[in-house]
Amino acid sequence: MAQEMNIGLLGFGTVGTGVLQIIRDHQDKLQHQLGCSIKVKKVLVSNLHKEREIKIDDDQLTLNADDILNDPSIVAVIEVMGGIEDARRYIRQALENNKNVITANKDLMAIHGSELLELANKQGCDLFYEASVAGGIPILRALVEGLASDRISKMIGIVNGTTNYILTKMSKEGRGYEEALQEAQALGYAEADPTADVEGIDAARKISILGTLGFSMNLDLDDVSIRGITEVTREDLAFCEQLGYTMKLVGIANRFNDKVEVSVQPTLVPHEHPLASVDDEYNAVYVYGDAVGETMFYGPGAGKLPTATAVVSDLVAVLKNNRLGVNGNSVILPQFEKKLKDPDDIHAKYFLRIHAKDISGTFASLTHLFHENEVSLEKILQLPLNQGKLAEIIVVTHAVSKKNYDLVLEKLADADVVVEVKSSYRVEGDRK
Amino acid sequence: MAQEMNIGLLGFGTVGTGVLQIIRDHQDKLQHQLGCSIKVKKVLVSNLHKEREIKIDDDQLTLNADDILNDPSIVAVIEVMGGIEDARRYIRQALENNKNVITANKDLMAIHGSELLELANKQGCDLFYEASVAGGIPILRALVEGLASDRISKMIGIVNGTTNYILTKMSKEGRGYEEALQEAQALGYAEADPTADVEGIDAARKISILGTLGFSMNLDLDDVSIRGITEVTREDLAFCEQLGYTMKLVGIANRFNDKVEVSVQPTLVPHEHPLASVDDEYNAVYVYGDAVGETMFYGPGAGKLPTATAVVSDLVAVLKNNRLGVNGNSVILPQFEKKLKDPDDIHAKYFLRIHAKDISGTFASLTHLFHENEVSLEKILQLPLNQGKLAEIIVVTHAVSKKNYDLVLEKLADADVVVEVKSSYRVEGDRK
Repeated sequence: MAQEMNIGLLGFGTVGTGVLQIIRDHQDKLQHQLGCSIKVKKVLVSNLHKEREIKIDDDQLTLNADDILNDPSIVAVIEVMGGIEDARRYIRQALENNKNVITANKDLMAIHGSELLELANKQGCDLFYEASVAGGIPILRALVEGLASDRISKMIGIVNGTTNYILTKMSKEGRGYEEALQEAQALGYAEADPTADVEGIDAARKISILGTLGFSMNLDLDDVSIRGITEVTREDLAFCEQLGYTMKLVGIANRFNDKVEVSVQPTLVPHEHPLASVDDEYNAVYVYGDAVGETMFYGPGAGKLPTATAVVSDLVAVLKNNRLGVNGNSVILPQFEKKLKDPDDIHAKYFLRIHAKDISGTFASLTHLFHENEVSLEKILQLPLNQGKLAEIIVVTHAVSKKNYDLVLEKLADADVVVEVKSSYRVEGDRK
Repeated sequence: MAQEMNIGLLGFGTVGTGVLQIIRDHQDKLQHQLGCSIKVKKVLVSNLHKEREIKIDDDQLTLNADDILNDPSIVAVIEVMGGIEDARRYIRQALENNKNVITANKDLMAIHGSELLELANKQGCDLFYEASVAGGIPILRALVEGLASDRISKMIGIVNGTTNYILTKMSKEGRGYEEALQEAQALGYAEADPTADVEGIDAARKISILGTLGFSMNLDLDDVSIRGITEVTREDLAFCEQLGYTMKLVGIANRFNDKVEVSVQPTLVPHEHPLASVDDEYNAVYVYGDAVGETMFYGPGAGKLPTATAVVSDLVAVLKNNRLGVNGNSVILPQFEKKLKDPDDIHAKYFLRIHAKDISGTFASLTHLFHENEVSLEKILQLPLNQGKLAEIIVVTHAVSKKNYDLVLEKLADADVVVEVKSSYRVEGDRK
């Protein structure tokens, strides 16, 4: 049996450096687990002479990906360069040359995951991507191991640290959206162009990866209905708080019978729900499995060492499989045909905030409107506004079909007594 | 290579039945992961003719453990019979005959774990025990995989469902201790004799297993300082709530430099801490690693399917190792000499509730007493009691040494102005 296994690294930024560091520092333990040692044979870089925070021999560096992808002695390739097109081409080439692949690239996996997993399956190679969802949380492994003996019916994930930081500051410290965003940018939790985060796109990529794996169904980014946090106001948050809810931007993937729904939106969870106390830049994924019941995995969503740790865990699994001769068997191709729920099939509770005229009969006409569309109410809060000329009305519905709820929203916008529909959010995690 | 691997089951109660069911239902997936199939060759039972909820051939059952332990074709033995002495003898015999072992037995592992792990190591066999700590939470695996590239400095675990259920009912629904206990018993969450749970012994077993593994140091049950929940009152809980804390019975294992502390006690955590929202019979383990930072794993602590799922995950790992020829390498023997912290080295915040005489100078004499013992205060709440004849005084200290704090407790008991020291609890998880 091999005494040493060669691997190659594509990319040598923060995560790549972390991976090399971990492999070096823990060589003995890794050898102990694997029965052989790991050698990082080549690292693809874009500049051979850059100052680096880690020492590496010149002949370990290369500017040419082919030195890694065409080297028959390399059994596994780690892609930590980021970006889409080059990464995709390199990973395809690695798989075509029968190399196993580990990637931390969520953008790539959300867009080209199914194509790459199919190729890996065809080639009998592993393609592992734990680090692509939430760096410090071993959630994909939990889903895959759980899947061997469970059926996942729901996942709710706080999978974007930027928006969680912003919403935490707004809820807990009364900041406005713009102010909280600037604070996040100053601390490096948000990028100069925060669009992908605050519009929910990053979270949508991750929930599509989770949904695909958890439900064994090929879910694309296009299947995710997406709403970001840019319209959330301090007032909304204060009323949520008052009614016992915390607002989080979550990705939801749920399944009933054989139909699924995948979405991202600002969502209210009860204060006592485990997701409610996931604050600041932290991530968490709540999973409901028919056998195991409720579980939740909490941890940092990003960062050099958490992400590198996830990559190295994948590497160990891939190399173990290699020595067992079972590479490719862990690639889980979607088993089921994609069936998305219609708005008729999506049932949820909603929080709805309205400014209405404070005249006799207002409330009666509103309740009539709810009632005739089969939307029943669980909580109602009415407060005077503008010296009693207007009324601030907040309701939380029972679980209703999205179709009926959307109809109510439409009719409310046209109703005489309604001045403005201020906001509307989904409610999840009520155990009653 | 082997096309089929034989295993034996010791015990065929709830968990044993669950294990067989999972292996049968997921034979294809397991074969796919392992490259060979699993055959349950023999099951040790105490009655051959009992009615069972699962079908099994008569010749698969045996009354004689030797039929499993001395069968050279069996590579792994699953112990799910419970109890101490027989289980210990069988596991020893299995290891001596070079069989790998999976056990769900926390009582056994807490008392004889180090002896059994040493034997496994000597024999080059695996001894896995994921199901012994918190059935539905893959925490041992997380620690072992985390350990490959991290240093754990703190673990706080809600690892006993019974006491968590009782405290939840007391906090959230205002029940008294006795009433909540009876409710737990009626629902099957507490046993007729609840001593091991309510006195903290069950939690102590689990935190000693977690501490041993997380710190790689041989921690016995005797090393755990233990306090249960029998003295907790509704009034204590109401004041905790008022000051922003939730009370949980937790096991704490922490390390600073090379010294550790392991304890179980009712502990206050801030409402916004992830552990605070772990309610009812649920378990969670919060882990702080130097590389990964804060993580938490939440899920059911017991139950047939969660526990059986954990056992089967261990089985898959053991059989993979067997095919790799690395059995025994995963046995983690304590690397470090045991060094326990002195009361001088244990630093924590405390919640302290006193009834004092409401006379001029009371508060001054109390603050003087705190001050001269180097205990400084973070929060103070004083309320009149008994029409102003007494004062209810509650303080939360800054982090102080246990030695100094214990001295203060002693002196308060003797102080003229103090009528009674009502209660005292440790506070954890304040991030300030």
